[in-house]
Amino acid sequence: MPVCPDFPGADASGICGVNTLQSGVELHRLLDTGTVRKGVVVGGGYIGLEMAEALVRRGLEVSLITHSPEVMNTLDADMGRLVSQALRDLGVTLYLEETLTDFVTKKGKVTGVKTDKRSLPADLVILGLGVRPNTGLAAAAGIPLGEKGSIRVNGRMETGIAGIWAAGDCAESFHLISCRPMYIALGTVANRQGRVAGINLGGGYATFPGVVGTAVTKICQVEVARTGLQEKELSALGIEWVSAVIKSRTKAGYYPGAGEITVKVLAERGSGRLLGGQIVGMEGSAKRIDTLATALHAGFTVEEMINLDLGYAPPFSPVWDPVVIAAREAAKLL
Amino acid sequence: MPVCPDFPGADASGICGVNTLQSGVELHRLLDTGTVRKGVVVGGGYIGLEMAEALVRRGLEVSLITHSPEVMNTLDADMGRLVSQALRDLGVTLYLEETLTDFVTKKGKVTGVKTDKRSLPADLVILGLGVRPNTGLAAAAGIPLGEKGSIRVNGRMETGIAGIWAAGDCAESFHLISCRPMYIALGTVANRQGRVAGINLGGGYATFPGVVGTAVTKICQVEVARTGLQEKELSALGIEWVSAVIKSRTKAGYYPGAGEITVKVLAERGSGRLLGGQIVGMEGSAKRIDTLATALHAGFTVEEMINLDLGYAPPFSPVWDPVVIAAREAAKLL
Repeated sequence: MPVCPDFPGADASGICGVNTLQSGVELHRLLDTGTVRKGVVVGGGYIGLEMAEALVRRGLEVSLITHSPEVMNTLDADMGRLVSQALRDLGVTLYLEETLTDFVTKKGKVTGVKTDKRSLPADLVILGLGVRPNTGLAAAAGIPLGEKGSIRVNGRMETGIAGIWAAGDCAESFHLISCRPMYIALGTVANRQGRVAGINLGGGYATFPGVVGTAVTKICQVEVARTGLQEKELSALGIEWVSAVIKSRTKAGYYPGAGEITVKVLAERGSGRLLGGQIVGMEGSAKRIDTLATALHAGFTVEEMINLDLGYAPPFSPVWDPVVIAAREAAKLL
Repeated sequence: MPVCPDFPGADASGICGVNTLQSGVELHRLLDTGTVRKGVVVGGGYIGLEMAEALVRRGLEVSLITHSPEVMNTLDADMGRLVSQALRDLGVTLYLEETLTDFVTKKGKVTGVKTDKRSLPADLVILGLGVRPNTGLAAAAGIPLGEKGSIRVNGRMETGIAGIWAAGDCAESFHLISCRPMYIALGTVANRQGRVAGINLGGGYATFPGVVGTAVTKICQVEVARTGLQEKELSALGIEWVSAVIKSRTKAGYYPGAGEITVKVLAERGSGRLLGGQIVGMEGSAKRIDTLATALHAGFTVEEMINLDLGYAPPFSPVWDPVVIAAREAAKLL
């Protein structure tokens, strides 16, 4: 279920979530009337950023409000800053470290929003405040809940009540790097969980070992990817780390179309165990996160990553892949 | 050193290798005279294919001769066939399973080639027959040689004579999947070996654990990648395997620009240990080999690969990444 503030006026027309096909259809219909000029997006995550881009492309004047220091707070702020800049380059006005406090409406229609710092006019307000698990029924049935109210499951996706199974945005995951339960509402996780639950429901045997927290998105030409734990999660867990941020190119430097890529790698202080990685860059950047994600699953140290035999040819990569350059730099800091 | 047949006429003008900057400059100069109409490429590997594409783009009538059943014999024939087709689509005439037997020359200039099956006219013959290690000096100095005459080295890149080190196209590598020495003349390997040799020469300590045999290239829009062992290598090693070949898309099916991708995964019969992978597909295909390469380094089974937490968003991938779909299919065959 999408998170929605319970301020007065939240049901006014022009205030939308984008969480079902139907909500997308309705938003399209509203935009097609041609009467919408000023859009305010609340939330700097995947949905917020994708909607901000879509509205700019439709010719709207777009503002985005987030309570975080930079958009995309699943990245560390130094990497999120690159994404904030990409949005500004697109023409989006950012209001960082601000909190939505009120909707302004007139005759059942939204006319603006208020934050803790300002008022903004708006014909359209899009809420991208994340989701929470829709587990009221499960709770009422006495099924034990876990992280953020999601349904606690074992490795086979069975709930605390034998014979009742859960998978998808209502269910908890296990994070393989923090070794803690975690709530991640992503389609990939839901899909893999569903496969495991289905096999078990059908009398087979399968387990879902857990996630490393991989996600990718793009804002126009800028690709964004993350995996593992970020600095604030490491701090909360009491894990000490080193980090390296490097700039490289998506292809050999002399090859036409080579674009900039920035890679951050986090490794445990001392042991060198890879803890996470973040990527912001041009075309060809984002899916490089898969190398880091696979290395996380493998429990590799950054030292072990230096000699990974990755694919190289000038149209695809520098001789040293950017993720390996970042691992190499992190290894120097252990 | 490039492999060159020692037939009479091999030094005729119009017969070129492409192995140094200077040989590239000379080839350019020859093509710029505008007198070259018919090009024959000998060899179906990386250099042969890249040169065939380059000559077609220059407007030449291009033939390619290879002794293998399909071009790119570092892929299994079923995957190589896709690359052969890409070359034919480009307008290259292929002569498969044919062997160069002679050069035809007139007044010191090449006018054609002969194979075991035919004669072909040619103004230009490009040799892409691979390289062999340039180790005459090392052999004369009594340094022990290994695979294909390359210099045998230990994990620190030290030769059999203490204090003498080797790295690059003259040196042997260790293959992490076959657990055998192997000769691989690729820039990435040379670069990583050079780093290790340099650290050790400078009094430090570093080891080069070995390679998994990853390589990528492209022919126009078609991207090609391979890692690990291919079927003929597995046969020679006495390893039994299962394989799965799947077709998927590079992006979500409904997303603009989604292209076809074919992935083959090889896994050990019974254990399910990943042994190798091959990819042929449109833009965004080749670097997916890095996930398979990293999984090879990790010693993953295909079963373990099913739940890899890889990046998904519609512009980048189907919900199940094609390499994971292939691993999942292979796991069903164990």
